[in-house]
Amino acid sequence: MLVLMCSNATEQDIERVANLLESKGFRPLVSHGEARTVVHAIGIVEIDQRDLELLPGVDEVVKLTTNYKLAARASQGVDTVIEVNGVKFGGKYTGLIAGPCTIESYDQVDKTAQELKDSNVKIIRGGAFKPRTSPYAFQGLGEEGLKIIRSVADNHGMAVASEIMEVSQLEMFEKYVDILQIGARNMQNFNLLREVGRAHKPVILKRGLSSTYEEWLMSAEYIMAGGNNQVILCERGIRTFEKFTRNTLDLTAIPVIKKLSHLPIIVDPSHATGLRDKVEPMSRAAVAAGCDGLIIEVHYDPDSAICDGAQSLYPLQYQELYKQIKQIAPIIGKEIL
Amino acid sequence: MLVLMCSNATEQDIERVANLLESKGFRPLVSHGEARTVVHAIGIVEIDQRDLELLPGVDEVVKLTTNYKLAARASQGVDTVIEVNGVKFGGKYTGLIAGPCTIESYDQVDKTAQELKDSNVKIIRGGAFKPRTSPYAFQGLGEEGLKIIRSVADNHGMAVASEIMEVSQLEMFEKYVDILQIGARNMQNFNLLREVGRAHKPVILKRGLSSTYEEWLMSAEYIMAGGNNQVILCERGIRTFEKFTRNTLDLTAIPVIKKLSHLPIIVDPSHATGLRDKVEPMSRAAVAAGCDGLIIEVHYDPDSAICDGAQSLYPLQYQELYKQIKQIAPIIGKEIL
Amino acid sequence: MLVLMCSNATEQDIERVANLLESKGFRPLVSHGEARTVVHAIGIVEIDQRDLELLPGVDEVVKLTTNYKLAARASQGVDTVIEVNGVKFGGKYTGLIAGPCTIESYDQVDKTAQELKDSNVKIIRGGAFKPRTSPYAFQGLGEEGLKIIRSVADNHGMAVASEIMEVSQLEMFEKYVDILQIGARNMQNFNLLREVGRAHKPVILKRGLSSTYEEWLMSAEYIMAGGNNQVILCERGIRTFEKFTRNTLDLTAIPVIKKLSHLPIIVDPSHATGLRDKVEPMSRAAVAAGCDGLIIEVHYDPDSAICDGAQSLYPLQYQELYKQIKQIAPIIGKEIL
Amino acid sequence: MLVLMCSNATEQDIERVANLLESKGFRPLVSHGEARTVVHAIGIVEIDQRDLELLPGVDEVVKLTTNYKLAARASQGVDTVIEVNGVKFGGKYTGLIAGPCTIESYDQVDKTAQELKDSNVKIIRGGAFKPRTSPYAFQGLGEEGLKIIRSVADNHGMAVASEIMEVSQLEMFEKYVDILQIGARNMQNFNLLREVGRAHKPVILKRGLSSTYEEWLMSAEYIMAGGNNQVILCERGIRTFEKFTRNTLDLTAIPVIKKLSHLPIIVDPSHATGLRDKVEPMSRAAVAAGCDGLIIEVHYDPDSAICDGAQSLYPLQYQELYKQIKQIAPIIGKEIL
Repeated sequence: MLVLMCSNATEQDIERVANLLESKGFRPLVSHGEARTVVHAIGIVEIDQRDLELLPGVDEVVKLTTNYKLAARASQGVDTVIEVNGVKFGGKYTGLIAGPCTIESYDQVDKTAQELKDSNVKIIRGGAFKPRTSPYAFQGLGEEGLKIIRSVADNHGMAVASEIMEVSQLEMFEKYVDILQIGARNMQNFNLLREVGRAHKPVILKRGLSSTYEEWLMSAEYIMAGGNNQVILCERGIRTFEKFTRNTLDLTAIPVIKKLSHLPIIVDPSHATGLRDKVEPMSRAAVAAGCDGLIIEVHYDPDSAICDGAQSLYPLQYQELYKQIKQIAPIIGKEIL
Repeated sequence: MLVLMCSNATEQDIERVANLLESKGFRPLVSHGEARTVVHAIGIVEIDQRDLELLPGVDEVVKLTTNYKLAARASQGVDTVIEVNGVKFGGKYTGLIAGPCTIESYDQVDKTAQELKDSNVKIIRGGAFKPRTSPYAFQGLGEEGLKIIRSVADNHGMAVASEIMEVSQLEMFEKYVDILQIGARNMQNFNLLREVGRAHKPVILKRGLSSTYEEWLMSAEYIMAGGNNQVILCERGIRTFEKFTRNTLDLTAIPVIKKLSHLPIIVDPSHATGLRDKVEPMSRAAVAAGCDGLIIEVHYDPDSAICDGAQSLYPLQYQELYKQIKQIAPIIGKEIL
Repeated sequence: MLVLMCSNATEQDIERVANLLESKGFRPLVSHGEARTVVHAIGIVEIDQRDLELLPGVDEVVKLTTNYKLAARASQGVDTVIEVNGVKFGGKYTGLIAGPCTIESYDQVDKTAQELKDSNVKIIRGGAFKPRTSPYAFQGLGEEGLKIIRSVADNHGMAVASEIMEVSQLEMFEKYVDILQIGARNMQNFNLLREVGRAHKPVILKRGLSSTYEEWLMSAEYIMAGGNNQVILCERGIRTFEKFTRNTLDLTAIPVIKKLSHLPIIVDPSHATGLRDKVEPMSRAAVAAGCDGLIIEVHYDPDSAICDGAQSLYPLQYQELYKQIKQIAPIIGKEIL
Repeated sequence: MLVLMCSNATEQDIERVANLLESKGFRPLVSHGEARTVVHAIGIVEIDQRDLELLPGVDEVVKLTTNYKLAARASQGVDTVIEVNGVKFGGKYTGLIAGPCTIESYDQVDKTAQELKDSNVKIIRGGAFKPRTSPYAFQGLGEEGLKIIRSVADNHGMAVASEIMEVSQLEMFEKYVDILQIGARNMQNFNLLREVGRAHKPVILKRGLSSTYEEWLMSAEYIMAGGNNQVILCERGIRTFEKFTRNTLDLTAIPVIKKLSHLPIIVDPSHATGLRDKVEPMSRAAVAAGCDGLIIEVHYDPDSAICDGAQSLYPLQYQELYKQIKQIAPIIGKEIL
């Protein structure tokens, strides 16, 4: 930790800081600059830096440690590559997940899977428990939905990704799904993070609507601290002043996260933009920026969808998009299987 | 619902909209303006408005119903007043809650309660389960903490407010606390909202870091839809581009919420600002803006606090602040008991 | 305009609205829905909608006219294509502009131009007047700088783009530059917009740090209202809560603007990200999303740059990037000359 | 400046940093912590810190100097108090400015002034040049407007505050107004700031819509660097994700700015909230938080106002508000004359 003193701090002020640091177990190293004095607190001790900030003569405190360790790039030489049903996320691989927003019926999931198979999709997504802003809106088919998607996936040789919303659902999810998904609103549901940290399935961790990169990695750290290293980060748009699109998709997260962490990062253009005609350009952009995967909503007949049909692609659109990103990936040395 | 057509929409475009509306159960009423044509969809049917937005010739869709009904001002003639241990929130009353951030020990809570009693505090707050960004940080004393604060409160004739983090904790909380608190990160933990909706205790619902007024009221609606009408909204700062303060306290929420809803709204200046010397001016400002209560962190000895000591007031500061707000409240016709 | 009444509005309330509308020159058309009554104000009259919002029983007022007309997609069947020195922006063309942030010396500009020529750059950029946050920082070479870049460009057969900061500079700029650039901080400097609206040169209009799409198009409208239709919109990042990158590059602006307007939209990845290693992935992403051009900072020797060297590409990096985007553009039917 | 090395930085990395610092004129002081190594760059030299950030092994660079000096609290022991026509802003004084948004006619300004006089207003505001988002909207009466407000003010013994929009208007403004106002959109119009820095009149500097405290103080520094120390900072709301109110009024700016600077800070609740019924609670809140003044829109007949009538108070409302804040100010040791 570094304590930056005010330019007009007195000797007494500096001593007070040094004393507090010593009392907490640090070794204080004072260095006098021309602009101001800096106290370098040598040692690794948990302390609330604001206690220092409130001392007279202190201008600012700078942390020297990041709070995430297991998720940090420094902890591991190579990129983490996560493989599910032959699809790889991370390193030189860009993996694809597609499927309907919500599981509505066997028929709906089956027809959608049929279409996706033609575009080489090997992991299907679909929600059985839906986080809805309104208590009066459709909340999903629940376990019945999970059974449906599992059965359809088995018939087509696919793996399943679905969103888990609560600690008590873990056992059920372990039975039916291959990839656990944590939604944006649950990114800091710490009990849930801890719980999936004990699971033996890959976890897609969506970025919270207003979460910083550091908070996002800290949430990944929660999962990893439990022993589960298979975390896939998923950028899905942040909340800004601009309301024309549902959220602002932050694609710069891709190169930033790749520098800070060894974990794969994928993009969900469907929820970020909320409208079908924005999904295609943003998917291509994500691949061109170097993302490790995409998770896209596709419905065999979006016009009849119960939920979020407007952001679901028609199967033909997905097919077209698939062709385009297959061409873009190799330009930057990535591969879409 | 209103469907605003583009200025160059064709007769066919308008017909297509009318047909879709009819097929969904609405009665479409077309009115041709000079600027453009508007289709008024008469009827109340659940529909995804983006399905209309994607039709050719459609510019924008405007909802005519709000999603919150029980929380809406229109649902009830008078302000909801919630009373706990003689303290009232809402209407002409401004209630006060104070106490340490975290329950550390019997001694700490007891000493703090002793000090607060002198300033007429009748509801004590204190966290037993702490949502921490880092998996490695102190997570609270758990049930042991709840026992401590209950026992101290009983000794001093106080009521208890504490944060609940998970559905499975409800039974435990019903035993020890008088006011359930939902933290900002859980404002859209819908399962938890539904669960406390079945409880028989008042609920403090903190605004999410990046939640709009409407989303906040929708979360209140979740609780009320379960049968629990005792919801106290709590503004605690939103996330903006400004990083100097921890969050940006949005005091305009007070007059806005009072117009939209009959529920009481209180303010938490401690978490919003994160620094003790900002807590006092913001508390006074909140009262002057007409808030229905304050929840403030006070510690008998902030310098020794395990957590958030930097934002906790010294007992003497609280006493001083109490005197000031007692004078401000009557200027706008409010009363602090 | 549409006036949405509250669900509990009285007949009197509705009459009051109708009367006010009539007194202002509208023809009010009342339609009673199940959810609430809507008053459609037929006619095009300038009015402050908040005057209606403040009437009792009024819930919300919805505008039916957009304020930009010339810039709107509806005003023109085809995309505007702007050509400068053989480089085209808009329609199926993706144009490129490159050069140093700041003009430092003849030698610096000349060496950079030499390098860029090898990558087929035909428009060079460079600032002579720099908007600097600090009054004590280097403010640019002024007219001397414009002379330098003009002379270098002439020697290499290039056109020049440079930022104009004030009304009084217009005459000078008309002498030396081919494309006038309006910086983000001046996006709502209305006097300046009006002035360049009278110029006969293309204008690059950067998006303000916290400007909505609508405000951006309104500023384009200012320029076009003066008679200058050659406006190139430039996305350069918006300000959000995330501080890791300088700004958050909003690439979804590309498909959105293309739907709202016929004007070309280009991207400035250098200022948006502020760091060289983010410029490449974001440039590729912008092209993949369908942008009509890029403006990129390149310096023959970034390590010696006076200003913003850290976000300038090395010539070799630019060359590499050029090769990549030349491959990406045709995948979506665009062409880089 | 402090250069924080990565935890796995090599000796070579550290040496490279030290060498670069030395070549720029700093004396590098290396201190090895347990968490990581820190290089303290002793000396005050202008340098782009990103050049260091891009070196291998460097994690982060921390600035030790603030860029504003004259505006900084450290530069001056006591609060700056600015007096205009007997009204004082700063220190223990809370000054008041009121008047119409726009100057419409002699009659309108005169009638408003008459009303305000009864509430002891001694400085009248009114816009002659209006920054309007639309090129088609009313842009103000121009010099004619300034003549009107000057003449009315003289008749009633009042001073005048009005917004200047461009460098070329300074001479005209010096003739008619007593306080120059810089609007939010011009907060970083550096040429204009420099110019009013040479004027001999107090300047109200409004905070930009998305400007940080530091940027705001840097803009004050521009004015002060020109020799004009009479700068009054004015908080008027920032842009956030919340769109219910026009802007989010950031009242925490008051205690923050008072800690960082000796300059007075006032609040404009009219533009921040945009609606009359929010102006009163926010004005009271601002005074309770310790602001040094208020600038409020009042119109003798808001319903007939050309511009922003909806946010203008009725004279009777202002009178009522005046009584309330006169009572609040002394509670915190401030005085409203």
